[in-house]
Amino acid sequence: MNKLLIVGTVAYDAIETPFGKTDKILGGAATYIGLSASHFNVKSAIVSVVGDDFSQEYLDLLSNRNIDISGIEIVKEGKTFFWSGLYHNDLNSRDTLDTQLNVLADFNPIVPEDFKDSDVIMLGNLHPNIQIGVLDQLTSKPKLVVLDTMNFWMDCALEELKQVLKRVDVLTINDEEARQLSGEYSLVKAAEIIHTMGPKFVVIKKGEHGALLFNNEQVFFAPALPLKEVFDPTGAGDTFAGGFSGYLAQQGNVSFHNMKNAIIHGSNLASFCVEKFGTQRMESLEKEEVNARLQQFKMLTQFDIELAQ
Amino acid sequence: MNKLLIVGTVAYDAIETPFGKTDKILGGAATYIGLSASHFNVKSAIVSVVGDDFSQEYLDLLSNRNIDISGIEIVKEGKTFFWSGLYHNDLNSRDTLDTQLNVLADFNPIVPEDFKDSDVIMLGNLHPNIQIGVLDQLTSKPKLVVLDTMNFWMDCALEELKQVLKRVDVLTINDEEARQLSGEYSLVKAAEIIHTMGPKFVVIKKGEHGALLFNNEQVFFAPALPLKEVFDPTGAGDTFAGGFSGYLAQQGNVSFHNMKNAIIHGSNLASFCVEKFGTQRMESLEKEEVNARLQQFKMLTQFDIELAQ
Repeated sequence: MNKLLIVGTVAYDAIETPFGKTDKILGGAATYIGLSASHFNVKSAIVSVVGDDFSQEYLDLLSNRNIDISGIEIVKEGKTFFWSGLYHNDLNSRDTLDTQLNVLADFNPIVPEDFKDSDVIMLGNLHPNIQIGVLDQLTSKPKLVVLDTMNFWMDCALEELKQVLKRVDVLTINDEEARQLSGEYSLVKAAEIIHTMGPKFVVIKKGEHGALLFNNEQVFFAPALPLKEVFDPTGAGDTFAGGFSGYLAQQGNVSFHNMKNAIIHGSNLASFCVEKFGTQRMESLEKEEVNARLQQFKMLTQFDIELAQ
Repeated sequence: MNKLLIVGTVAYDAIETPFGKTDKILGGAATYIGLSASHFNVKSAIVSVVGDDFSQEYLDLLSNRNIDISGIEIVKEGKTFFWSGLYHNDLNSRDTLDTQLNVLADFNPIVPEDFKDSDVIMLGNLHPNIQIGVLDQLTSKPKLVVLDTMNFWMDCALEELKQVLKRVDVLTINDEEARQLSGEYSLVKAAEIIHTMGPKFVVIKKGEHGALLFNNEQVFFAPALPLKEVFDPTGAGDTFAGGFSGYLAQQGNVSFHNMKNAIIHGSNLASFCVEKFGTQRMESLEKEEVNARLQQFKMLTQFDIELAQ
């Protein structure tokens, strides 16, 4: 079984949407990535940090999904990273109400021995120096390194971000961030610029408008599934990344052709994530539901046009 | 050969985008629809009105595309409908600088005898009463009636619009307009509401984010082709409608399955329209270019996922 190493936050979130609000619940990029990737036959581990205020129940939830949590450091008398956000009526934009870095401020990631030769590395959104710190601990060259980031690091750690990008095969990023990073409005041009920074593959996430995969001249597009209700978009991008990297780790095939399938698997899993608050929907998600919706994705996008008229 | 009847404006446009500006050039919904539909083997006619200030060269351009223009009334001493718009930097929004209805104010459409039994009717964006006036002149039930409209008519002629919608098979509309017409933010719910107003098929155009086709429980999505440069979005929606209705008229098959192909043909033709100012690109467009880009659409969207993992 291939190995997937996941790096990212394991956190407490407090979320408010037009449909309700939560107290502190399970959150964090690595959490969503891990839950999503657990739908594939891979041996996965999370590298992260929490405080000793973090619920054992949540750690068990991850272990029970066969995720190795030995790389999640628990800091004594430390407080877990906390994020609080308020989504606007269209759910496309949000305000961050509170961010408490807590134990994340001094996080020094330690990759478990058994995962230093992982096949796929999924670097979730974190300070680029932490992402570099993980790559430096690997003992063999992985098949694929995927990196997710956000505008925050472009604003305050652009040079470090550019350093880690040189060592990355796939960058996943949203449309506005792709524009900011490249200085180009056209996403086709933005991807071209980002290719020159290192990543041979650029995935541009457009939320409800789907995702684009660029590999030089090749392009693939996957829509988001049109949904009647979107309840809470938190974690959708990370769930996408988890499906994408989990599928590729399982298959061990990182061709452009297979990456198309990975994009569909990621979009498919993300379509569930937004149906309930936080990780709730992903916790209850069954294989049959996943497969049925994959079929819906096929119906949604596949056509059989004849070129001869 | 099947018949396609096109109703809409034939106009003068003056356009300004971040890339330049034009004097009065050829424009109008029926013009773009007609040029686009001329890529299919159909017998088409335009019903419209212009003033005698309208350039013979432009009328010849349409005739030379085998479009029957006997239904374009030329009003003596009348002035042609004029629209002027300024696109913002992202090309996704625009300001209307000037609208002169001129001869359109008293337009009384007359359907040519030979087109009263058309197979497909494409009702371009116009006052709903004019659209009804055309349907009233038909002598046999068409295979398909497609209607395009905009928020302007929802604001000032909603009851008339609702009347014509009852007689329509397909409504093409953009996302904001679908929300306005239905009162629902979710496009899935919006399509459900619009189904109850008459149209069995609802096409929601999302510009650079592609187009959705709804038919009760069935959904299909086509992306817009990611382009390096968008020069002028004017007429893209009408070009889409022309490709959609032209293909369906040619095929004479109005099943959901075939409508998927029509959506792809419409999106494909619209991707050319935006590459130059006004109708310029559509005037020079060759069959080989159209077919090559259809192949790109296949590459962009088709995947071959195995459900067994």
